[in-house]
Amino acid sequence: MTLTTLSTDELTRVVSEIFMNAGLSQAQALPVAEVIAAGERDGCKSHGIYRIEGCLRTIRAGKVNPTAAPALDDDGSAVIRVNAAGGFSPAAFALGAPVLAERAHRLGIAAMSINDCTHFSALWPEIEKLTDAGLAAMAMCPSYASVAPTGGNAPLLGTNPFAFGWPRPDAMPYVFDFATSVAARGEIELHRIAGTPLPEGWAIDRDGQPTTDPQAALDGAMLPFGAHKGAAISTMIELLAGVMIGDLTSPEALDYLGSMTLLPTHGELVIAFAPARFAAGRAGDPFARAEVLFDAIAGQGARLPSQRRFAAREKSEAQGIQLSADEAAQLDRLLNAPGAV
Amino acid sequence: MTLTTLSTDELTRVVSEIFMNAGLSQAQALPVAEVIAAGERDGCKSHGIYRIEGCLRTIRAGKVNPTAAPALDDDGSAVIRVNAAGGFSPAAFALGAPVLAERAHRLGIAAMSINDCTHFSALWPEIEKLTDAGLAAMAMCPSYASVAPTGGNAPLLGTNPFAFGWPRPDAMPYVFDFATSVAARGEIELHRIAGTPLPEGWAIDRDGQPTTDPQAALDGAMLPFGAHKGAAISTMIELLAGVMIGDLTSPEALDYLGSMTLLPTHGELVIAFAPARFAAGRAGDPFARAEVLFDAIAGQGARLPSQRRFAAREKSEAQGIQLSADEAAQLDRLLNAPGAV
Repeated sequence: MTLTTLSTDELTRVVSEIFMNAGLSQAQALPVAEVIAAGERDGCKSHGIYRIEGCLRTIRAGKVNPTAAPALDDDGSAVIRVNAAGGFSPAAFALGAPVLAERAHRLGIAAMSINDCTHFSALWPEIEKLTDAGLAAMAMCPSYASVAPTGGNAPLLGTNPFAFGWPRPDAMPYVFDFATSVAARGEIELHRIAGTPLPEGWAIDRDGQPTTDPQAALDGAMLPFGAHKGAAISTMIELLAGVMIGDLTSPEALDYLGSMTLLPTHGELVIAFAPARFAAGRAGDPFARAEVLFDAIAGQGARLPSQRRFAAREKSEAQGIQLSADEAAQLDRLLNAPGAV
Repeated sequence: MTLTTLSTDELTRVVSEIFMNAGLSQAQALPVAEVIAAGERDGCKSHGIYRIEGCLRTIRAGKVNPTAAPALDDDGSAVIRVNAAGGFSPAAFALGAPVLAERAHRLGIAAMSINDCTHFSALWPEIEKLTDAGLAAMAMCPSYASVAPTGGNAPLLGTNPFAFGWPRPDAMPYVFDFATSVAARGEIELHRIAGTPLPEGWAIDRDGQPTTDPQAALDGAMLPFGAHKGAAISTMIELLAGVMIGDLTSPEALDYLGSMTLLPTHGELVIAFAPARFAAGRAGDPFARAEVLFDAIAGQGARLPSQRRFAAREKSEAQGIQLSADEAAQLDRLLNAPGAV
């Protein structure tokens, strides 16, 4: 079996099999594998196959229910609640997303909360599921306390990702998905490994003083993007996608597991909008009008978000996902090591 | 009549009278006056009495319908639409807000669009109306094209404000309201008048090059806060609160009036969340849990947003709103100049 070039479906099957070997039910394994394969397909290594081992570590630590059956709580209102029952978030998202989409089309706007999950997913694959259904969408979640609020001196907020998407009938959707910290923790790790100083403004040390030393930053706290404005958005995410949905905030998630080496336990909030409902009876087609805006952005040389990812996807779809010899060997080892967990 | 110290209600009445003298109906005048009096009360001069003349200029230019009767379009769904009928936004907000609040309590989440308005309001007075009703809320709107997308070279996005609030049963709400540009246009004006250079990173000149010269910045474009992340949020606001609601984007708003000296014509989007609905059946009371987060933020010396504004309000409520001799004279002149428009 050569693993050097795989289709997205093939990679999904391989990764899914690795997780099933580790004890996950197919219903849990497949949606996580889809996120990982989509990450690898899109050249988005932060959610690619290198994350498999972190997922396995979390399973091995007994922190995730390997055969959880997520449960839908739908009272017909504009809020759909999915309890992940201690399983991974993607299975819960997969269960709730079609209901969220139906409700947003029917009521104009709807929200979905995911509770009691081991959170593993970039937000953009979820956003794209909703833009595929003709909806605009917003998603956010806490993470681990690792970011100091502006003016503060210690980790409190998470790197709290915020994502948004807008459907484009004849193009890949407009999608952004970013950490509300100025940099991701992994980027600081890379500087530490390379022995290079951090750019100014990324982090503070454990005394709350600005630092460009990667280890001091890892021992201290990261800073929010955009100073007090980014800190405000990150706090909003703690409130809406932690407190409001009755799930853990970033400091609570860290307290709960006591370590950032395992995937965090917390919830997520997704909001879906039906543009056709908001724009009904108004002049102009919203999807056509959005293209005018995108053309104006691109026309002055600015980049629409996710374009690098979409270019990588196009290449992967044409030529298959190319894995390096090391990556292929890693995948092979994980696949052929039954009981490794 | 001494105008040096006024209660908020007295100031509201005076400002309202000025607008009625200028031809506004009471239904149009009073909500605008309330925004201005609230701004003055809270020490938020950017929406205080100095803005009266800009409102009058817009009325005089025939760009606002002085006796508009906003109309509610409510189909029982989660989306309430208010057509301002060419009047000022506050009258439309006042009509729709109670319906939005009712709907959010009933359905868990609801949204309100305001269309066809002359937009004049900070977003925080609106957010506070919803937090007063026990709701979390988000508001956003386009403005005038004056901000270049990151990587671009010309004005396209507006300064697009984004606001959020969370109700606190025993304290003033958690509220933030900020421009998604790194600085407000007025701050650049102040530097121009003072003859001081701008901080780095605020603006580009008309050739798209970074500048610290205020006039070159005014002739060029402002930059978004937080680089590409802020630009993405600003673009999201154009899409949701312009395109999606079938109203003008920031470049369209500028094209429509051809000048930034008049208040802009566009729409607004408000989203309200009922925390009690999202958290139902989950462990912990969301309002009590939010206080733990706020205590942790304040406990490390970071400031919660709006605290300066709330301190000014407390003082104004105890001692009245103090106007300088110049401000009092301006108010007097406007009040006693019937037909000045």
